[in-house]
Amino acid sequence: MNFPMIRYVLSWVLKVEGAILALPCLTAVIYGEREGLWYLFWMAVCLALGFAGTFRKPENTEIYQKDGFAAAALSWIVMSVFGAVPFMLTGEIPSFIDALFEIVSGFTTTGSSILSDVEALSHTSLFWRSFSHWIGGMGVLVFILMLIPVKNGSQMNLMRAESPGPSVSKFVPRVRNTAILLYKIYIMMTVLQIVLLMLAGMQCFDALCISFGSAGTGGFSVLNSGCATYTPLQQWIITVFVFLFGVNFSFYYLILCKKAGAAFGMQEVRAYVLIIAVSVAVITWNISGMYSSFSESLRESAFQVGSIITTTGYATTDFNLWPELSKYILVMLMFTGACAGSTGGGIKVSRILILLRTIRKELQSIAHPRSVSKIKMDGHPVDHETLRSINVFFITYAVIFAVSVLILSIDEFPFETNFTAVAATLNNIGPGLGDVGPMGNFGIYSPLSKAVMVFDMLAGRLELFPLLLLFCPSTWKKRG
Amino acid sequence: MNFPMIRYVLSWVLKVEGAILALPCLTAVIYGEREGLWYLFWMAVCLALGFAGTFRKPENTEIYQKDGFAAAALSWIVMSVFGAVPFMLTGEIPSFIDALFEIVSGFTTTGSSILSDVEALSHTSLFWRSFSHWIGGMGVLVFILMLIPVKNGSQMNLMRAESPGPSVSKFVPRVRNTAILLYKIYIMMTVLQIVLLMLAGMQCFDALCISFGSAGTGGFSVLNSGCATYTPLQQWIITVFVFLFGVNFSFYYLILCKKAGAAFGMQEVRAYVLIIAVSVAVITWNISGMYSSFSESLRESAFQVGSIITTTGYATTDFNLWPELSKYILVMLMFTGACAGSTGGGIKVSRILILLRTIRKELQSIAHPRSVSKIKMDGHPVDHETLRSINVFFITYAVIFAVSVLILSIDEFPFETNFTAVAATLNNIGPGLGDVGPMGNFGIYSPLSKAVMVFDMLAGRLELFPLLLLFCPSTWKKRG
Repeated sequence: MNFPMIRYVLSWVLKVEGAILALPCLTAVIYGEREGLWYLFWMAVCLALGFAGTFRKPENTEIYQKDGFAAAALSWIVMSVFGAVPFMLTGEIPSFIDALFEIVSGFTTTGSSILSDVEALSHTSLFWRSFSHWIGGMGVLVFILMLIPVKNGSQMNLMRAESPGPSVSKFVPRVRNTAILLYKIYIMMTVLQIVLLMLAGMQCFDALCISFGSAGTGGFSVLNSGCATYTPLQQWIITVFVFLFGVNFSFYYLILCKKAGAAFGMQEVRAYVLIIAVSVAVITWNISGMYSSFSESLRESAFQVGSIITTTGYATTDFNLWPELSKYILVMLMFTGACAGSTGGGIKVSRILILLRTIRKELQSIAHPRSVSKIKMDGHPVDHETLRSINVFFITYAVIFAVSVLILSIDEFPFETNFTAVAATLNNIGPGLGDVGPMGNFGIYSPLSKAVMVFDMLAGRLELFPLLLLFCPSTWKKRG
Repeated sequence: MNFPMIRYVLSWVLKVEGAILALPCLTAVIYGEREGLWYLFWMAVCLALGFAGTFRKPENTEIYQKDGFAAAALSWIVMSVFGAVPFMLTGEIPSFIDALFEIVSGFTTTGSSILSDVEALSHTSLFWRSFSHWIGGMGVLVFILMLIPVKNGSQMNLMRAESPGPSVSKFVPRVRNTAILLYKIYIMMTVLQIVLLMLAGMQCFDALCISFGSAGTGGFSVLNSGCATYTPLQQWIITVFVFLFGVNFSFYYLILCKKAGAAFGMQEVRAYVLIIAVSVAVITWNISGMYSSFSESLRESAFQVGSIITTTGYATTDFNLWPELSKYILVMLMFTGACAGSTGGGIKVSRILILLRTIRKELQSIAHPRSVSKIKMDGHPVDHETLRSINVFFITYAVIFAVSVLILSIDEFPFETNFTAVAATLNNIGPGLGDVGPMGNFGIYSPLSKAVMVFDMLAGRLELFPLLLLFCPSTWKKRG
């Protein structure tokens, strides 16, 4: 491993984290909250450590694939550990594991919370929580890579570890220019949502926090009631935007390049829309007896479906009380996840599509052993390496899932709770069912279980392998 | 598809089924039960249809892979539909879907029951139920292939569809001689268990039925209390035998060939023993507070672990009441299943081993992109085709699982019940948790859900693809 380069990257992470801590400080000034002083102090610490660590540039700036994966995992760990400290300093979340859980949930855009009363938090901390979604959604390494010198070709090794989804599309951020364009889309859409929510009468602070959470597909809300007390119009605006942020960003890229035909032809986006439409229809019908009007059922259904499939995790109702069919559809959507190349988590629609096509191809090859057919996506054959990596991803995913539920079982909560707690954290969703439903919280679990879920959230955000690699002794060998 | 050959094979299935219906008739004679007359009548019907259908041999006896898969699936469906009728004729299980569920559960060696009171059944029907396990365990096609003329090379296409597990071992029944030897082992072990149980004081009828269920890893019991009222010694004998029937039969084959070294070196068998040892140890500790002595905890733990991992499904206690950790370990064992090449169901230990090695290899290849490593099993590299088929199996398995739970959810039972009901049927186990736990039964579900579980049991027994192939229109095309 190229240790000097890792040190350099991690120090840059601290510099960036220090810089963004300025925003909660600003919030504290606006609301006159004393918690801001702790944030200011910690901002200074991060900046000091960051500048100290980046004072000397490494001679060798080359990053191998292994280094890239390890650097990505370590960056997210460092960012999370340092990001958790302000919660402890202000005394709002005194336990380290709780504070860590909360900020990891923020950066990984999960939105699961250990807090039973979010309204007790200062505006400063609420802002920091929600802003972490926005930062985590697009990824911090992609941002840092625009700033630091890295040997040509090495960028890819860092970014691959952080950008979500299999790279079946050619428009996944590969080069600096694409990254900048994607950031622009991200920022513009966020601003648009903030403006629309405020026009619809939402308070500025709420509009900011909710939009950060929608953009990053996070899900931390600022009210104990989640999003239930917002007006129908405001809820519809949120629904539309979480849906939009779950679309593969290549779609917007193509639109901007004036290739609307190609954009609307993207099979992943079409499947994503179809899954949402069917789910909303079935659930609207299934829950119709629980709400007073069709429009209310439709709104509740659409909001929850959009929120869950994009792995955002906002809730306007306690879907724990919904019929089993609707609940189970939500559980399935938790695993489906949003599109690759979006800010959402989960297995991703494109992976699901390719996995389903693998089954079809297998049946075809049994029926016609001599025929040679290739699995295609958007008309192009999917190469062997991508297929293999999707299979391995799916297997690894299942194993991590099973082992996580095993460890959580020690705490003796019911199966539904444990199963959906892992589903909610590994897929970066937010709420689960049972005791961790929209009206429950993750504070009920033991520190061990919380640690497992912290691992799951990071593993889910970084697509499993970077984090697993840290457990291989060979990763830690100095480069010969 | 070679329709004349399919007709010929299916008619042979009916002949064999007619022949084995003689045994419940004999039981009826011994116990003087009038139900036997219906069995006799139905035996005559099966034989008549069977002989009519095999009167003319097909000219072309070649079976392609597709035909083999379809023939296997259709054989099992025909065998099940005809096997269900006696339950309806005697009036003991009047509903068709219930009778079908019960006999499919028998033939597929699942052991899930829709009956709330098995003791109300006649000895004749109890015997038929349990004997179906024994027939289904080894597979009926393997048996038929010894009797009928098939073009050389075509046997494989039929047997591949019926023999469980990936063919990583070279000793999976390929040729007639191996098949005969495996049948001998199967029969000898069954007889040994019957004798030992009777020596331990069990009644002859119970000893027969319980042994049939152990050998086929079925799980139908003849008492409402399951196996709870048998003596500790009898329970230990059952424990040992279910364990032995879950071992890869290649192990016994090697022992008989005096290759004990190779037998005990089989990685699958070692992993199987290790998984059982660890599970028994953890559960014994976890449930120790619920039982009066260490030996009782150990016995309950060992019985349930053996019964579940081998997908037998007998129970000596209501493990639904166990702590969550123990329950979840059982759920994991449901998926693990027994060894390939045994009579057990589930994913199979060898597949799990290979899947885990896939993950290790992936991590290695990230750390050392230029190194080329192969996944090995018992020292031999696993070829690409086997790996691919295991991946596809796992993906298909997950999709069938998810969709099945979705349909069961319509019945509004809790998630734990639906999840484990599918796990219990797709893996051919028997009991699940919640409402379908050892003291519950599957009669609670709607006909639609029962039909789904009938599909799952057959899909699980035939390793998914033969049954799926029936849904492809191209399967039904006449051969050109």
